[in-house]
Amino acid sequence: MGLTSCVVGVDFGTLSGRAVVVRVRDGAELGTAVHTYQHAVLDRELPDGTPLPPDWALQVPGDYVDVLRYAVPEALDRAGVAPEQVIGIGTDFTACTVLPTLSDGTPLCELPEYTARPHAYVKLWRHHAAQAQADRITELAVERKEQWLQRYGGKISSEWEFAKALQLLEEDPELYHRTDRWVEAADWIVWRLCGTYVRNACTAGYKGQYQDGAYPSRDYLAALNPGFADFVTDKLDQPIGQLGAAAGRLTAEAASWTGLPEGITVCVGNVDAHVTAPAATAVEPGQMVAIMGTSTCHVMSSDQQGIVPGMCGVVDGGILPGLWGYEAGQSGVGDIFAWFVRTALPAEDAERAAAAGQSPHEYLTALAAGQKVGEHGLVALDWHSGNRSVLVDHDLSGVLVGLTLSTRPEDVYRALLEATAFGTRTIIEAFETAGVPVDELIIAGGLTKNALLMQMYADITRRPLGVIGSDQGPALGAAMHAAVAAGAYADIRAAAHAMGKVRRGVHLPDAERAAAYDRLYAEYRLLHDHFGRGGNDVMHRLRRIRAEARA
Amino acid sequence: MGLTSCVVGVDFGTLSGRAVVVRVRDGAELGTAVHTYQHAVLDRELPDGTPLPPDWALQVPGDYVDVLRYAVPEALDRAGVAPEQVIGIGTDFTACTVLPTLSDGTPLCELPEYTARPHAYVKLWRHHAAQAQADRITELAVERKEQWLQRYGGKISSEWEFAKALQLLEEDPELYHRTDRWVEAADWIVWRLCGTYVRNACTAGYKGQYQDGAYPSRDYLAALNPGFADFVTDKLDQPIGQLGAAAGRLTAEAASWTGLPEGITVCVGNVDAHVTAPAATAVEPGQMVAIMGTSTCHVMSSDQQGIVPGMCGVVDGGILPGLWGYEAGQSGVGDIFAWFVRTALPAEDAERAAAAGQSPHEYLTALAAGQKVGEHGLVALDWHSGNRSVLVDHDLSGVLVGLTLSTRPEDVYRALLEATAFGTRTIIEAFETAGVPVDELIIAGGLTKNALLMQMYADITRRPLGVIGSDQGPALGAAMHAAVAAGAYADIRAAAHAMGKVRRGVHLPDAERAAAYDRLYAEYRLLHDHFGRGGNDVMHRLRRIRAEARA
Repeated sequence: MGLTSCVVGVDFGTLSGRAVVVRVRDGAELGTAVHTYQHAVLDRELPDGTPLPPDWALQVPGDYVDVLRYAVPEALDRAGVAPEQVIGIGTDFTACTVLPTLSDGTPLCELPEYTARPHAYVKLWRHHAAQAQADRITELAVERKEQWLQRYGGKISSEWEFAKALQLLEEDPELYHRTDRWVEAADWIVWRLCGTYVRNACTAGYKGQYQDGAYPSRDYLAALNPGFADFVTDKLDQPIGQLGAAAGRLTAEAASWTGLPEGITVCVGNVDAHVTAPAATAVEPGQMVAIMGTSTCHVMSSDQQGIVPGMCGVVDGGILPGLWGYEAGQSGVGDIFAWFVRTALPAEDAERAAAAGQSPHEYLTALAAGQKVGEHGLVALDWHSGNRSVLVDHDLSGVLVGLTLSTRPEDVYRALLEATAFGTRTIIEAFETAGVPVDELIIAGGLTKNALLMQMYADITRRPLGVIGSDQGPALGAAMHAAVAAGAYADIRAAAHAMGKVRRGVHLPDAERAAAYDRLYAEYRLLHDHFGRGGNDVMHRLRRIRAEARA
Repeated sequence: MGLTSCVVGVDFGTLSGRAVVVRVRDGAELGTAVHTYQHAVLDRELPDGTPLPPDWALQVPGDYVDVLRYAVPEALDRAGVAPEQVIGIGTDFTACTVLPTLSDGTPLCELPEYTARPHAYVKLWRHHAAQAQADRITELAVERKEQWLQRYGGKISSEWEFAKALQLLEEDPELYHRTDRWVEAADWIVWRLCGTYVRNACTAGYKGQYQDGAYPSRDYLAALNPGFADFVTDKLDQPIGQLGAAAGRLTAEAASWTGLPEGITVCVGNVDAHVTAPAATAVEPGQMVAIMGTSTCHVMSSDQQGIVPGMCGVVDGGILPGLWGYEAGQSGVGDIFAWFVRTALPAEDAERAAAAGQSPHEYLTALAAGQKVGEHGLVALDWHSGNRSVLVDHDLSGVLVGLTLSTRPEDVYRALLEATAFGTRTIIEAFETAGVPVDELIIAGGLTKNALLMQMYADITRRPLGVIGSDQGPALGAAMHAAVAAGAYADIRAAAHAMGKVRRGVHLPDAERAAAYDRLYAEYRLLHDHFGRGGNDVMHRLRRIRAEARA
């Protein structure tokens, strides 16, 4: 490679897309730009005003293309890099974010006759209206003892490809039949870039239930719904591309959008969390990366194939070709802290924070940091947005125990921070109990800024914490994959060593605090198992009561 | 009685005393005045700066005398009543609020040598530092199968006379030995008014464990602590006066304080909650009065003698001579709502409330009132200040279950309101299960102003709700007792019919809402029994962890 060769990484998030121009030889991030999706998330109505039912979350595919048109040229411009220096482009996406298209990739929602049809749009990862379908998918798999089920912690999520497709079939059969391809947005954007539809190994495995070279069987699908029998062959199956492989070359059209040279390498699609692992140099077995933002995603490669209860999935080559890629997650983390600040921070505290020039989070964190472990007398369950791992139950909800008349906002805030760390420890213990060692914990994402939170994670997991050295881990990771696809590095491991960024041992566990947290963690686990494993099914009953009251 | 005869009632609360001048013939409240205690509650330090340990709560007896000196004359003045029209004075007090005195009633804290000694002061009802003593009192009574224990729901409170006295003995033996009399403030103030120390039947029974004409035995006390063996005979025993009887006549000194004529009747002391029952005309068996303020006290007379688990006590003549008087309670009610508004109301809501000219409580109540039952998806345990009835455990704490990212302040507020109603229903069910019927529910106290809350209590208990017709129920009740003591009425029942005030059937239960609440109540009871009866003793462990962290 040339000393000044660059790659472009584009990270497609929930509300915006970010492009970053990265120097191939050392991973230097030379320029970046963000483009916010015009339509954000459609969760109340379509652009034409057609109302949406509860739990829906859609997007408009044209917004993704706009990221290519605006963010990429702007990043290039800011980097001061000539287009000719760029040798490849890589992308990562939220997942499972999926859309119905014609055989040429045209989204159904772009056909004039379907603009008012909700099912014609992209179903965003957090579209949760296919729960009934997901439940049936799991139940039938249990009944039929489908082997692939254990690879998903024993439960198939309503967020994934099959549940969302089955919802489409059952709620809008006409559109289902019009659908030629059921495409992950991660692959759709690559298709737009290079004109070739390659299905990436990551989403195929984690979201498409593709295991050991096969999808769920025709028999199984027919038993779910006779009309669903040929879903895989008709609409889903597609050649699989390994992560870091080239999907094709940049088309003239995409070159005109991005300002990049026609014909440069376009990398196979990838997922935001998974692509962050090599960005944080986590390319060896047992190096777990927790990407902590509104939610947390835990990704780790391992040479051990284990069945971890409640993991999101284990996929061969799901993160790095040649290793088993594990994914687990916590569905609410930063979201819960934001909820607290939004709904429970008194005016007096908001004013003090403002007077001190602190954000509410900085203010509460500073107060909470002055406390000894256990001083607040509280324990919380961090299930305000349900529980992904290890219970895989989106209908669970948050709990606070130990409230007294002297409980202060910073007490509850601290208990919520701790609860998310207890959630991560629960996940790590599930891995280790299943024979999949977790040797190291590296944190990426926006919450790395909170030193108290990071220290809690070190203390509570009793592990030294590394922190990613980039604020734009996914985009950096996508760029690294582009470098590999373009042939600048032999494989992702090599690219990670050259371009990845981590600060190791930033937060070291303190034995005394760790011991004190152990006592609170024991309480967390008691409550976790009681409310999460059927001891008291009150949370599900409260949801039903709520739904009936609102009906 | 003359058409213009009046009585004065004086209600000694936690932070202030209130005097009211009442016309004897019809209970008309002619004038009222409040005097705030100069020293309020000493819970951090003595007036000289001597620091106090956690859980202490003391008062200064001179503050009570100031109420006589300032509030009584002012009430008289506002009433436009000539002193000669006043035929008697009655009082009521918080309880168990108790102090050590010399044989003439001089408080030990008024002796110059003891002004820096915490144990020399009045121990306010909510002094909770004698928990260790209370635990031993209960344990020993269980062990020895003391018959009186069941009259107190199976548990003796740390708030009561024996626990507080034993703490005095064990922590400051010198002061214990200097104590001639261990006096309820309810009786001490009467002693100040008429120069005679008469022990009222109400506090003797409820707070002094006086049952069937006897206190706990010398044997039992000796087993608690050999130095405590003669506590009853040496310091506690005193002739008992029935409620509504005359204790004596106003002394010249007290006449000079109050501006009332020397020699008028001074009624036997009484307790704020108990005296409110006849003020609300609840003089028949099965009429329960719930006095709802920061906490709730439930009082009811019955012709049935029952053993109600977790009641505060059942006392012969404890409310009305000739009937069994029952007391139960919830240790946090309005306190919990106030805690929520103080610590969890966001600035935005506080501003909206202010813009609408509403108090935060009015604002949250209005929002909550728009909801259907169960719409918030929450259930709470109202134990932020522990649980008095039916669990008798001050170390329990509050719980919230069902929190989601869409939970709003008004949702939690409503769940807290409901939880206190569920607490009252739990108490009523304990009475009825024990064979003590509860026929009617009448509410007194500041929370009667909240119509949503009242309607909840009607719906959740499935009982028509009466509301007391006075804003100063205790002072009115005290005045009624003075009228009886002065001979204006034959007994309290007669006085209640003439002077008491109630609006019956103000809130009627709605069958549909009641059925919806039943489902939430079932959840409350599951959590109640799980956390309150040993299913998960997490709350006690969290307290211990907290105490150790703070130590």
